[in-house]
Amino acid sequence: MNLERNVVKSDPDDARTWRQQIYEVVFEADTPAGVLFDVILLVAIVLSVMVIMLESVESIRHEYGTLLVGAEWFFTALFTVEYVVRIACVPRPLRYVFSFYGIVDLLAILPTYLIALPIMTDAETQRLTTIRALRLLRAFRIFKLAHMLSEAEALRDAIWAARAKIAVFLSFVVISVVIVGSAMHLIEGGRLDDDGQTMSNGFGSIPESMYWAVVTMTTVGYGDVSPTTALGKALAACMMLLGYCMIIVPTGIVSAEFAQAAKKNMTVRVCDNCMAEGHEADARYCKYCGTML
Amino acid sequence: MNLERNVVKSDPDDARTWRQQIYEVVFEADTPAGVLFDVILLVAIVLSVMVIMLESVESIRHEYGTLLVGAEWFFTALFTVEYVVRIACVPRPLRYVFSFYGIVDLLAILPTYLIALPIMTDAETQRLTTIRALRLLRAFRIFKLAHMLSEAEALRDAIWAARAKIAVFLSFVVISVVIVGSAMHLIEGGRLDDDGQTMSNGFGSIPESMYWAVVTMTTVGYGDVSPTTALGKALAACMMLLGYCMIIVPTGIVSAEFAQAAKKNMTVRVCDNCMAEGHEADARYCKYCGTML
Amino acid sequence: MNLERNVVKSDPDDARTWRQQIYEVVFEADTPAGVLFDVILLVAIVLSVMVIMLESVESIRHEYGTLLVGAEWFFTALFTVEYVVRIACVPRPLRYVFSFYGIVDLLAILPTYLIALPIMTDAETQRLTTIRALRLLRAFRIFKLAHMLSEAEALRDAIWAARAKIAVFLSFVVISVVIVGSAMHLIEGGRLDDDGQTMSNGFGSIPESMYWAVVTMTTVGYGDVSPTTALGKALAACMMLLGYCMIIVPTGIVSAEFAQAAKKNMTVRVCDNCMAEGHEADARYCKYCGTML
Amino acid sequence: MNLERNVVKSDPDDARTWRQQIYEVVFEADTPAGVLFDVILLVAIVLSVMVIMLESVESIRHEYGTLLVGAEWFFTALFTVEYVVRIACVPRPLRYVFSFYGIVDLLAILPTYLIALPIMTDAETQRLTTIRALRLLRAFRIFKLAHMLSEAEALRDAIWAARAKIAVFLSFVVISVVIVGSAMHLIEGGRLDDDGQTMSNGFGSIPESMYWAVVTMTTVGYGDVSPTTALGKALAACMMLLGYCMIIVPTGIVSAEFAQAAKKNMTVRVCDNCMAEGHEADARYCKYCGTML
Repeated sequence: MNLERNVVKSDPDDARTWRQQIYEVVFEADTPAGVLFDVILLVAIVLSVMVIMLESVESIRHEYGTLLVGAEWFFTALFTVEYVVRIACVPRPLRYVFSFYGIVDLLAILPTYLIALPIMTDAETQRLTTIRALRLLRAFRIFKLAHMLSEAEALRDAIWAARAKIAVFLSFVVISVVIVGSAMHLIEGGRLDDDGQTMSNGFGSIPESMYWAVVTMTTVGYGDVSPTTALGKALAACMMLLGYCMIIVPTGIVSAEFAQAAKKNMTVRVCDNCMAEGHEADARYCKYCGTML
Repeated sequence: MNLERNVVKSDPDDARTWRQQIYEVVFEADTPAGVLFDVILLVAIVLSVMVIMLESVESIRHEYGTLLVGAEWFFTALFTVEYVVRIACVPRPLRYVFSFYGIVDLLAILPTYLIALPIMTDAETQRLTTIRALRLLRAFRIFKLAHMLSEAEALRDAIWAARAKIAVFLSFVVISVVIVGSAMHLIEGGRLDDDGQTMSNGFGSIPESMYWAVVTMTTVGYGDVSPTTALGKALAACMMLLGYCMIIVPTGIVSAEFAQAAKKNMTVRVCDNCMAEGHEADARYCKYCGTML
Repeated sequence: MNLERNVVKSDPDDARTWRQQIYEVVFEADTPAGVLFDVILLVAIVLSVMVIMLESVESIRHEYGTLLVGAEWFFTALFTVEYVVRIACVPRPLRYVFSFYGIVDLLAILPTYLIALPIMTDAETQRLTTIRALRLLRAFRIFKLAHMLSEAEALRDAIWAARAKIAVFLSFVVISVVIVGSAMHLIEGGRLDDDGQTMSNGFGSIPESMYWAVVTMTTVGYGDVSPTTALGKALAACMMLLGYCMIIVPTGIVSAEFAQAAKKNMTVRVCDNCMAEGHEADARYCKYCGTML
Repeated sequence: MNLERNVVKSDPDDARTWRQQIYEVVFEADTPAGVLFDVILLVAIVLSVMVIMLESVESIRHEYGTLLVGAEWFFTALFTVEYVVRIACVPRPLRYVFSFYGIVDLLAILPTYLIALPIMTDAETQRLTTIRALRLLRAFRIFKLAHMLSEAEALRDAIWAARAKIAVFLSFVVISVVIVGSAMHLIEGGRLDDDGQTMSNGFGSIPESMYWAVVTMTTVGYGDVSPTTALGKALAACMMLLGYCMIIVPTGIVSAEFAQAAKKNMTVRVCDNCMAEGHEADARYCKYCGTML
């Protein structure tokens, strides 16, 4: 989101000031107009996604099809105007266009235009449904609000700091899934039925067994595939306990990381007057006796 | 629960003292009579809810119907008396009537009276079953006990303090559900059977797919709807691992918040005599050497 | 487990010393003989439970029935001897007999004797299967080892310390299950089929719906009962997200409690020589410079 | 992984230096060549496991069988060369051959050779599929990178430090599974159908019921076996809540352990100049005022 931090130099020239004003409203959220813009945009995004959802339900499409298409074009027009305005008022348009949010904004309006082209068939319209759902990614833009940004960045930093441990954990998950999946394939799969063909009981190949292993390890447990032999059930029970317990380790790691990050907000400065520690990093005066630090 | 904190000024006048006494018993839990009242009320609430539950079972309703209806009227009468008493002894009745607990108390007795009215049909009686279940909300009143209140308030404050991070987390959940739901709708759904109609396999529309996504991401995994194609299974596996791992982040955040809150109960006061730190906020004397702080 | 801490006064009298020696072996785990006794007992408990498990499998019972019955009597005899020895060597026998472990030990041997009585029928033998399974409760006795005891006690203390917050949490779970269960009963249940009878689809009564609510909220998700209407699915999705997120709060609470407990093991004593803090509560010498504290 | 820490003394002799150079590339990851070797090895491992996975899918085996067998031999040859090189350049070959990674490396190449022997039947080839999957265990070798090692070791140490509490927790899980499994066996199982034979409804024996108990307690919840009686459902609901809540305790323990471990990285050294505490264990200079510690 560095885009939003682009410094738009104040300039007495009228056109630049106009651009600067629009920029503040559209990209920043410090002014009431900026916040209002963000709120309207958020509502529009949520409504447009609901339109996409309703369109996918056959019964609703038959009854309200025209209304939904109209709403779809309304939102597309709205987002197109917003896209053009963003390009117009940002200092470096190309940088925005190729940034993550620029691409998301473009993908949000493009499908509807492509559908209008006569070369689109029905199946391709369905595929564009997903792309239209990307509009919701624009919702992240809403969290431009300064303190929200710092929250998401703090989250991202804390997870990034623990990335080595998390990588070890994820590798362990993948390895367990492969090993146990292969074992279950051998124990439960490969049964031949009367015709000599391999019965399809969900463990017929290693990828299928790995799918079962993931379903079981994450404790989702659909039940569409489950072991039937005693040995298979025993191994499955071990897998379940492993998945059940395994979440403890990364949770403990991340908790400790967050606790450490929270503590770093405190300095170790000692107040000269009252010998008190534990002042926040941004404290100017000792909060216990009022003396200046 | 500010209601309970209404200061009822002590007044030598007999009627006011009577009201004050009743108030202490009904709303406060400092006196033995107050605690006894709360215990009796809690038992009555639990029993009345069990009556509602048993009434909904058809076999029990046929056998014990009259007994249950009698019990229902008994409890309704009991709660009506309690409601009248509360209104009578509280300083500002209107404030109680329109507070959360006032409305809950009213809804707890109203349905039984409405059922007695001859205009009620059978279906509407069912709807009132839910409203009668709201009696259980009154159980929160039981936690009037001071230290319990502080516990629930501490919980509420800690969660409120982390609301920004939790909002980011919840948004991420919603966005994932929409994106993956739409993707699964495209991968698994929209299959036409021999008649040209869309088969209903649980992925026929985006809302249906989103329901599957929530079931999978929260690791509930009913199994009533599950992917059948290889690509669908692969995406489902990613979704499961995401849901399995995603709970780590907010847990770490909340753990750190609680740890911080727990530490803030300690001051950084240093005892003049023994140079010891770590005294509780309400400590008058140093717990290590007994000197007054 | 205060029983194990009964001080058996040393006594020069031979009979008392004999009793004291046996006591040390059976109840304590400080001596090699005591540890060996505990290990043998643990192995015997595990094996006897496996005998019970194998007996319940019909095919195994038909083939190895006599062998299993013989093993069962062997273990019963072994545990009977142990029970008698315990009563014989403990200072206050009645106190042991009526303690938790005394009752468990008795229940562990009683069923086998009762089965031998000719008045027992087959169904009652099954019931005794459960009682025999209580033998496994005796496994807790194994954790007599001092540091293990302190671990389990530390766990128990930490959970007891947070009991108020946990009670609030559990109440919230129960209230949610009742409210959502009743709501789903109204939305999904009570459908009449062609004969006018209520269809049994799992939501036919409030207790049934509450069972579904528990299955869903704990993210177990059997799938034997699941919502079919759109509104029901929407409410179910909310329930799942609630159950998914709700585990965060008590986890954070307990994590903070354990962190606090861990810190309390450190005193705030300051070493006179090197000004170092952070010494363990049981430290005699400063671990940084060796000076006596 | 002590193997990697074998000190290979530098030696001016040409043969030893050659061995030392190969050792650095193969076993260490400090040089660019060492990192490149590790990356190539990791890619080869992942690809060879994917070959095994694809081979198990019958349709792919029929179409691309020859190609996959060729790839399998390529990787086997590659890993054989690597194995020989490792034995050649390590100071104490026997110690490597019998270490965990030596055995894994051997098992990774052995099955393919065994298959080539004409005495292998089809069933035995399947069994070797699992052994070939062990190649993935070699992926742990990749985490030779120093800081990764320290991460995995920190994880292992933290878990080892809390092993007593975790043992108590696991025992509690096993005991719960046995007790509840036996109870459900009595409540739900042992029903006789019209022929007098025990119906197989998943609770027919204690081991089967214990399997259901594990499936439920870990919140996996396949749904292939679920209680049907009211009492059985009530007990199942308690089991689910127990499993749902039980994960809180070890999570709290491990979080506290990680938090403690994180804090121990800070010394209690006090800077002489600015009286500041909280310096990292590897700090040479005070980070607040720059004075040397």
